[in-house]
Amino acid sequence: MNEFYLAMDLGGTSIKSALFTSDFSLVAENRLETNAHEGAEIVLKRMILSLNQLLASSQITPSQIKSLGVGVPGLLDRHAGISIFSPNFQNWENVPVAALLERELGIATFIDNDVRMNLYGECQFGSGQDKKNVVLLTLGTGLGAGVMIDGNVLYGTTGSVGEIGHMNMYRQGRECRCGSSGCLGRYVSALGLLRTVREKIQAGQQSILSEWVNHDLTQLTAQQVSKAYDEKDSVALAAFKETGEILGFGLANVINLYNPETIIIGGGMSAAGERLLATTRETVSAHALQLSQATCNIVLASLGDAAGMYGAAFYAKRESS
Amino acid sequence: MNEFYLAMDLGGTSIKSALFTSDFSLVAENRLETNAHEGAEIVLKRMILSLNQLLASSQITPSQIKSLGVGVPGLLDRHAGISIFSPNFQNWENVPVAALLERELGIATFIDNDVRMNLYGECQFGSGQDKKNVVLLTLGTGLGAGVMIDGNVLYGTTGSVGEIGHMNMYRQGRECRCGSSGCLGRYVSALGLLRTVREKIQAGQQSILSEWVNHDLTQLTAQQVSKAYDEKDSVALAAFKETGEILGFGLANVINLYNPETIIIGGGMSAAGERLLATTRETVSAHALQLSQATCNIVLASLGDAAGMYGAAFYAKRESS
Repeated sequence: MNEFYLAMDLGGTSIKSALFTSDFSLVAENRLETNAHEGAEIVLKRMILSLNQLLASSQITPSQIKSLGVGVPGLLDRHAGISIFSPNFQNWENVPVAALLERELGIATFIDNDVRMNLYGECQFGSGQDKKNVVLLTLGTGLGAGVMIDGNVLYGTTGSVGEIGHMNMYRQGRECRCGSSGCLGRYVSALGLLRTVREKIQAGQQSILSEWVNHDLTQLTAQQVSKAYDEKDSVALAAFKETGEILGFGLANVINLYNPETIIIGGGMSAAGERLLATTRETVSAHALQLSQATCNIVLASLGDAAGMYGAAFYAKRESS
Repeated sequence: MNEFYLAMDLGGTSIKSALFTSDFSLVAENRLETNAHEGAEIVLKRMILSLNQLLASSQITPSQIKSLGVGVPGLLDRHAGISIFSPNFQNWENVPVAALLERELGIATFIDNDVRMNLYGECQFGSGQDKKNVVLLTLGTGLGAGVMIDGNVLYGTTGSVGEIGHMNMYRQGRECRCGSSGCLGRYVSALGLLRTVREKIQAGQQSILSEWVNHDLTQLTAQQVSKAYDEKDSVALAAFKETGEILGFGLANVINLYNPETIIIGGGMSAAGERLLATTRETVSAHALQLSQATCNIVLASLGDAAGMYGAAFYAKRESS
């Protein structure tokens, strides 16, 4: 069948797009920098550029494309195709993404939240295949989640189901941009882990990490903390243990509230793997309801940063059929 | 149409059953004590007795009944009609409730969890009418919840979605029967409130409640704490404030994770009303995500202890049509 699908994962740093056959074989990919600080008009132009580059390099015309799916971060109205608000984008408010792309490309366009596109991707083609009850965590700079229960991906009143990054874990805790404090994402995320490391070093604990960044702790990366963990640096060991433990309490709540059969850990910080998850598993085991945890596996995502594109292609096909 | 539905709400203390017309007008009710301590055989006999009494008093024969819905506490397999485990019942394990009632009465029987039956009742006929995103809290001796998102009542892997009574609120808190500690239900429930009151009095705080029970604090009831609150007793005031606050943090998590448009507070302790909920609303307002809380109302259940029967009748009709 001469029918293709386009998919795009719009991120704060890069625009990733891909061309798929109707049975979701990946034909070609394109990646551009987002230049999010330059505002909506520029970003939209770069989105169109990315898709046109992809089509040109594949020698495919828009008439051969059935539909386009776009994963967009932040709050959106997927039925209207409007991105309402996206925290990492400048001058970005009520952007009619679907209508604008349809007008420029002549391709039916469907948008959804980026985390849910990742969930669709992992559930159709990755670690959540053949599952009906899945929570996907995107553990990167921050912490998000997409939720599928009884075979349905959940949206809720404002499309905000799964904001586990704002689960209150401490009554008085680290302040959060949301206006509350003690939110899970302030501890369990790359930024949260780095803050935990910095607090320990600033409290006088010795760490090889200080030397690696010439004592400029603002330069620390989560990858370095993983490397220091592997060298048995005591600060890195303690930071991963604390972070893994609070993630474990958070996941105990996720298990008790959503009753998933699989929790998939994705996002850049999932590369830490068992450095983080060993303690998480212990904590879940001690605190989640017995039956619910016995029927739940915690696994790593398998599609890496392609999950959002696979999900967007699946979503585009579903919405246009 | 000469077609009726039977409904039953099996509780730890009473068996409530009701006869409904096909458009859910209540025809008659029956109530018997459960005698849960006498084991499955006796309880099942009393369930059948209750239904037979109801039919006899209404001069209705089983042939006029389309189906029977039964709300059962605890863990169950609703498709198989088996009550797997129910914490307040003696000698109660893998009881084939549906098959046994069908055999005795000759009426098609469908079972589901009692909290979900309450949710079906409130969503069809009570405070959740015309809503698609609803969380129903049953705030009684303990704390449970049923969840509907995007119009679907959620079940999850083992039918255990919504166990908010076991949401971890404190890393080191009151011990819970589930094996964890610091669970929300250990604070927010009749038992939790009474423990908070007792702890204050045992720590030396003066309260009119001590006199009301002749200093036997094991005799305290939640109703008495409400009465003492109305008389501005400082222990009762503080206990409701603390309980309302921790409920507020719990509901902030419920709002952030489920994104409901309505949270319905039911169960016996909901009679405390704004004594409890005033502080809860303040806390939610300060800590839940802005958009999610702005689109969510916290209301009281409207069907009282009839919600489970209405829900069971609705469920019976839906499952048999």
